[in-house]
Amino acid sequence: MDPRVREHAETLVDWSARIEAGDNVVVSVAEGAHELGVATAAVLGERGANIVTTYGSTEMDRTYLTAHDGDFDTDPEHQLALYENADSVLRLGGGRNTAEDADVAADKRAARRQATQGVREARLDTDWVSTVHPTRSLAQQAGMSYADYRDFVYDAVLRDWESLADEMDRLKRLLDDGETVRIVNEGTDLRLRIDGRTAVNSCASVAYDSHNLPSGEVFTAPYATEGYVTFDVPMTVRGEPIRNARLEFEDGEVTDVTAAQGEGVVREIVETDDGSRRLGELGVGMNRGIDRVTDNILFDEKMGGTVHLALGRAYDANLPDGESGNGSAVHVDLITDMGGDSRLEIDGEIVQEDGAFRWE
Amino acid sequence: MDPRVREHAETLVDWSARIEAGDNVVVSVAEGAHELGVATAAVLGERGANIVTTYGSTEMDRTYLTAHDGDFDTDPEHQLALYENADSVLRLGGGRNTAEDADVAADKRAARRQATQGVREARLDTDWVSTVHPTRSLAQQAGMSYADYRDFVYDAVLRDWESLADEMDRLKRLLDDGETVRIVNEGTDLRLRIDGRTAVNSCASVAYDSHNLPSGEVFTAPYATEGYVTFDVPMTVRGEPIRNARLEFEDGEVTDVTAAQGEGVVREIVETDDGSRRLGELGVGMNRGIDRVTDNILFDEKMGGTVHLALGRAYDANLPDGESGNGSAVHVDLITDMGGDSRLEIDGEIVQEDGAFRWE
Repeated sequence: MDPRVREHAETLVDWSARIEAGDNVVVSVAEGAHELGVATAAVLGERGANIVTTYGSTEMDRTYLTAHDGDFDTDPEHQLALYENADSVLRLGGGRNTAEDADVAADKRAARRQATQGVREARLDTDWVSTVHPTRSLAQQAGMSYADYRDFVYDAVLRDWESLADEMDRLKRLLDDGETVRIVNEGTDLRLRIDGRTAVNSCASVAYDSHNLPSGEVFTAPYATEGYVTFDVPMTVRGEPIRNARLEFEDGEVTDVTAAQGEGVVREIVETDDGSRRLGELGVGMNRGIDRVTDNILFDEKMGGTVHLALGRAYDANLPDGESGNGSAVHVDLITDMGGDSRLEIDGEIVQEDGAFRWE
Repeated sequence: MDPRVREHAETLVDWSARIEAGDNVVVSVAEGAHELGVATAAVLGERGANIVTTYGSTEMDRTYLTAHDGDFDTDPEHQLALYENADSVLRLGGGRNTAEDADVAADKRAARRQATQGVREARLDTDWVSTVHPTRSLAQQAGMSYADYRDFVYDAVLRDWESLADEMDRLKRLLDDGETVRIVNEGTDLRLRIDGRTAVNSCASVAYDSHNLPSGEVFTAPYATEGYVTFDVPMTVRGEPIRNARLEFEDGEVTDVTAAQGEGVVREIVETDDGSRRLGELGVGMNRGIDRVTDNILFDEKMGGTVHLALGRAYDANLPDGESGNGSAVHVDLITDMGGDSRLEIDGEIVQEDGAFRWE
């Protein structure tokens, strides 16, 4: 076994999920994540945690949903009880075909999602962490060889997280103290307010309220957005490629949408509801282990030297206690690459120039 | 997909587990049983059942146990809650290596078993069914090609179970009404008492208190065994091959043990405790779809024309309500093939001669 699989499992269990003896852990293993599952089971055994292993099979989920009439029971007791009694849920992603559920009716998926809201809340109420094992299917989606893709994933996952957390804390403090952000880039001049909002130092650990491995971003919830922004990082959203989407904002709301490709999907997202016309997140990617786009949002949005903005729902963690931010049924991230002639300013001071932070 | 995989799933869900809309089902999928998992998920979706899928990975279990210090928590809450809230548990066996856990210390396995007794009881308290998907690993254990082994498994599983249940009911009634059984075969002349015991018609359905698919045996709990018996069906027990084990009984207890191979293991089993010197089960194989030995007890003991006897623990289902039969930490089946010049008698009347039932 590639020794990095074991290091990945240790990072997941110790740094990310902070699992200790006696913890009740659910490990979800995707069809292609067996090897990481085996390594994770060993680390959990060493720590003295208790393990229930679920099988995250997209093929089984697809045939189940396809065959079901769509009238789903509310929060099945056995599923609810499993998560209500779990301390941690480790989701080991990595399937065999990223398009496997392409033919599942969206309304059936939505109906199930609706019926099992309690199960989802119970799961999100644990110290959950999502990661992925590098599979051939994900390598294909990234347009990379399997060997190269494995290197890519482990470069992203096996960071010196403590030192990255320290670096990200600098940006967090600047954002917490700041009132306005300005992003200037080719095709972009955007001003956002962040006054009163709290940034999250998302360094891949539940101890920092961060639930993805890899992570490596600092994000907050902006408002009162003005100006225009061009998202030059190519993405696939709802199965459609998006290229150079450009949004214009006035008084915090989108007033114009264009795109070289996928304009229809971006419009559809913007027009979902009231909240989807506003931004719910401003995120700054700081993981320098991620040095290329792989069409996988788990990685792309954390790429060092990028900034992403999400249309729709804001995270409560960015708001003062008890307050809710922008509400929406959607949360769709779009990314801009901060290359030459770019600036990220907080209260008029340059924090990042031409893609490099001022402390780099 | 081989259409027999779908038929297997339908037999499992409908005939064996009797699953209905709204049932909470746990499906455990072994490493090699993915295809049967996909088919089972489709049938469960059609029936409107609720599904939680666990991953029955021997490799994960091995690394977990190997790494653990052996001081296991008692009945972890999340695992216990999962089974306590389940109506059915479908175990889809079929791994990639039947020897995968060969290097796990027996005492560690025993310690875990001890600590999780409540979990096991909760699982056995559901309408559970165990079956296997034909894998290359099981074909290898059987000494068969993969194609031949698939045919073998589906011949065993895809029976006309209703008609077999009717035939087995004949033998059940004879055993229920009978007081003594005599088995005569080459190297065998054994007399057992069955008076007051109830036979189980094990026809692969929870509706008949039968939890294996395939099944196809009628079994009861004998006592006061006298005589000698030779087990000529080759088996692997505790990793050791057993050939022509011969036991002598007096007053219900083993008085002599010999074997052409594996005598040490048989002695070890007999000497486990008081109950392991007595028989806990007399079973008659009636599944004519199983026409050869494959070194897998799930199949071998149901082979039409065989009789098996288990040293150790008896099943409560064979005893009058509230009574317990022979108790022991072990239950080890050994099999004799009722070929030419063999007789199975109940109260002196021949029920089976030369391997054929009198109604065949």
